[in-house]
Amino acid sequence: MLNTRFCERFSVELPLIQAGMAGNITTPEMVAAVSEAGGLGTLGAAYMQPDAIRQAIREIKRLTSKPFAVNLLLYPEVERPEVTPAFTEWLNGRRAAVGLPEWSGELPMTPDAIAERFRILLEEEVPVFSFAFSLPGAFGEEARRAGMKLIGTATTLEEALALQEAGVDAIVAQGGEAGGHRGTFHVGDQGDGACIGTLPLVALLTEALPDMPIIAAGGIMDGRGMIAALALGADAVQLGTRFLACKESSAHPAYKARLLAARETDTAITRAFSGRPARGVDNRFMQTQREAGVSPLPFPVQNRLTGEIRAAAARQNDSENMTLWAGQGVAMLREEESAAEIVAKLIREAERAAARIALLCPGSSRR
Amino acid sequence: MLNTRFCERFSVELPLIQAGMAGNITTPEMVAAVSEAGGLGTLGAAYMQPDAIRQAIREIKRLTSKPFAVNLLLYPEVERPEVTPAFTEWLNGRRAAVGLPEWSGELPMTPDAIAERFRILLEEEVPVFSFAFSLPGAFGEEARRAGMKLIGTATTLEEALALQEAGVDAIVAQGGEAGGHRGTFHVGDQGDGACIGTLPLVALLTEALPDMPIIAAGGIMDGRGMIAALALGADAVQLGTRFLACKESSAHPAYKARLLAARETDTAITRAFSGRPARGVDNRFMQTQREAGVSPLPFPVQNRLTGEIRAAAARQNDSENMTLWAGQGVAMLREEESAAEIVAKLIREAERAAARIALLCPGSSRR
Repeated sequence: MLNTRFCERFSVELPLIQAGMAGNITTPEMVAAVSEAGGLGTLGAAYMQPDAIRQAIREIKRLTSKPFAVNLLLYPEVERPEVTPAFTEWLNGRRAAVGLPEWSGELPMTPDAIAERFRILLEEEVPVFSFAFSLPGAFGEEARRAGMKLIGTATTLEEALALQEAGVDAIVAQGGEAGGHRGTFHVGDQGDGACIGTLPLVALLTEALPDMPIIAAGGIMDGRGMIAALALGADAVQLGTRFLACKESSAHPAYKARLLAARETDTAITRAFSGRPARGVDNRFMQTQREAGVSPLPFPVQNRLTGEIRAAAARQNDSENMTLWAGQGVAMLREEESAAEIVAKLIREAERAAARIALLCPGSSRR
Repeated sequence: MLNTRFCERFSVELPLIQAGMAGNITTPEMVAAVSEAGGLGTLGAAYMQPDAIRQAIREIKRLTSKPFAVNLLLYPEVERPEVTPAFTEWLNGRRAAVGLPEWSGELPMTPDAIAERFRILLEEEVPVFSFAFSLPGAFGEEARRAGMKLIGTATTLEEALALQEAGVDAIVAQGGEAGGHRGTFHVGDQGDGACIGTLPLVALLTEALPDMPIIAAGGIMDGRGMIAALALGADAVQLGTRFLACKESSAHPAYKARLLAARETDTAITRAFSGRPARGVDNRFMQTQREAGVSPLPFPVQNRLTGEIRAAAARQNDSENMTLWAGQGVAMLREEESAAEIVAKLIREAERAAARIALLCPGSSRR
């Protein structure tokens, strides 16, 4: 059932990845439940401290002996950015909204511990390393030498071809519908033109890269979406939003409540939180940045700078000033389920969708 | 083969519509070829003079006895808009680029002949009336009394529910990937949030409107996309871009050349040409409007005002100042084919995609 090249290459039963959502969402319980159910669970470790990553990996391994992935975001540090008075005014407005004092003006320039995080993945012998924001670079060679499988993220054909050249084992084709950060390498050029819908992106990539397993991501919420992606030529699907509000998710309760209430028109792409484009349920934090007409600072500086605000908002259950990452499929999210229930439902729905195709193309099964 | 509710309701063999692309694209030959091949061809009559519509319908009927559709855009006239000096400067820049003298400042406020166009559809007994930009209103009742089938266009769940309430026979779920005008009713609110990808939009609408045939549109370029849409629960697909460069298309040769060369990242949504959001291959006309930071006038005034520029550009083979409407699937367009060849290929591709699903879900055909 649904046994694709992806399943063989990654030694899993189902062509299904639970996305490695960063920022206190994925738990060892979620990752292990998805992997135990036959999919590939992913720990979103991008913002975790190295020690916490090690603990989480060990906990996952305690819960399951099946393959799982750990996701990191790979990005360069940036030069100290210029700050305009209008930016400071906007930021102080957000700080005031959550009861924080005025910004000191100090820019958080301490480099992130990406190499240290990656080191933990090597030491703990993680089966699959997935990443976004760039090519794997030197990490890729180290990961391969250690026997890890690599999954990169592409938002365009150009990015997919570069990832193939870099020797990854599979590529996530991330459509414009996807929640959270856009995985693009070309962050400077994220106009409308760079935001390709999942359906045409997957069709294009599977045609142009016939030897590469393509993983469809963005707007897929159920088994119908799985079969649709496989029909387009994908070898697997990656779902994030569907798992965001699940029982094992450590997403903030106020965030989960917003997800369960959201309509399909409620999300937007913003750089307000991190400096990089990402899709989430629109809220005051995003609206005030648009209204002020200020440019956020570059990633990762903006991300660190807004971290204190987001943490304060979380303590106050203030969903207007926290990140509410979600894809356009969020309108189809209606109840809190367990991760294992989600996987079981996906498979049943996929079987029904496949049966619909068999009924409409009665000769196809004999080919 | 592929016999859905849509086929039965519209008396066609294939769940496939060739989109009614306005602006001198669709020809009676294209429409008739698609209908003869078993699909539903559509005459894009939105900007045609009533007499020309009558001639085209008669020509289609001479070429085929099978059902076809005529598409109109339904919109209100607007108040005389304010014009800023910056707008005039931008417009004069575009006029100069194609050798036209400075704008007189006169606004083309003469109402469009929508009711007269619709009258022709009644008189010539057109089988299917498809439309966008609004609910059918009084036209809907007249069309139904005359025995016409109605197809409306929705870009959100709210629009789809309103169309169902208005009694249409099927609804096009137009995803954000689609080329040409966005069919939305809510033109004032066309931020990112209103641009839902085809995959999640179709999944949402088929779930929420189980008794309504949903036609998936946006980014579908081949038979894989057809099967994907059917797996999501759609009853048919509508393709525009795939037919744009076909042999029967009267699109300008310079436009066709741009389509065949375009990458998936080359399109953008603009209001620069018509005042309403529409997706096309990005060009100087669109770029200069963004750079000037001017707001186009409301539809249909902007559309009339730029008509002279577009006509001059066409005479000069100047693809930088004509409309190059195209969806995000345009990167998969590689050769000029006949409309009948396209339909035949779509069916073969759909059969292959269905066979792939049957292979991956071996039990599905026995359910």
